[in-house]
Amino acid sequence: MPAPERYLDDFSTGQTFDLGSFRFTEAEIIDFAVRFDPQPFHTDPEAAKDSPFGGLIASGWHTSAAVMRLMVDNFIPRESSMGSPGIDELRWTKPVRPDVDYHVSYLVEDVVPSTSKPDRGHIKGYLEVTDPEGDIVMSFRGRGIYRRRVDA
Amino acid sequence: MPAPERYLDDFSTGQTFDLGSFRFTEAEIIDFAVRFDPQPFHTDPEAAKDSPFGGLIASGWHTSAAVMRLMVDNFIPRESSMGSPGIDELRWTKPVRPDVDYHVSYLVEDVVPSTSKPDRGHIKGYLEVTDPEGDIVMSFRGRGIYRRRVDA
Repeated sequence: MPAPERYLDDFSTGQTFDLGSFRFTEAEIIDFAVRFDPQPFHTDPEAAKDSPFGGLIASGWHTSAAVMRLMVDNFIPRESSMGSPGIDELRWTKPVRPDVDYHVSYLVEDVVPSTSKPDRGHIKGYLEVTDPEGDIVMSFRGRGIYRRRVDA
Repeated sequence: MPAPERYLDDFSTGQTFDLGSFRFTEAEIIDFAVRFDPQPFHTDPEAAKDSPFGGLIASGWHTSAAVMRLMVDNFIPRESSMGSPGIDELRWTKPVRPDVDYHVSYLVEDVVPSTSKPDRGHIKGYLEVTDPEGDIVMSFRGRGIYRRRVDA
């Protein structure tokens, strides 16, 4: 069953989901950063060469947003999702650079039916973004609230 | 001394900084969401009326990005900033809606000189976004790495 068709009851601890890949152009990195994170190593390829990163890198929030797009396209259940209360341990562990493919995967760490609201529950999951060398460039732990199947 | 001119040595535990305000138009909320978080309650004002949120709300990642812009404009030191390793306890506690002013403040929780690299250290801080009623709509704890003054 594809993840976007699931309800809380269809997930179980230990499941992993491949969320696909994304890639930024230099123009996309600059466009996002000019609006939301205008630090020179995100907006100016020349200035970025003299930064601690040695070249242009994406805003960590841009990477987070690209990951969210893959979560919506390939993971978050269309009918049962009720949003997310938050994220823990968001880590930017390696610079994200233009013209590189990054891969995203999601591990279900726990499925917790609500004790107070029997129509829903939440999933705890660990999301990881890796580069072509297999290094983790970003990760977080998140929670999502999902409806239970009415026939469950 | 304005925050953007500071080095690690110029911060101390308990300081608070006013980072200013932001406001989203409906068009801005939809524009961000169409690209990064295309769930109906972020992209379609009509569909959003029937969602658990009762109307259009901003993607939590859009709110995070708007906060980052205020951090760059009004807080992050121009010369001494060396980026951030990550964020903890990112919480979306109340929907963010169009045409409302949200206020952002930052509390320095700890200033930690590096023991291995004497030219730098990190700040732990708590960031809070509040609405006109004074309710917290988003918060997180973050760390930033900053250079020390060469004369320190």
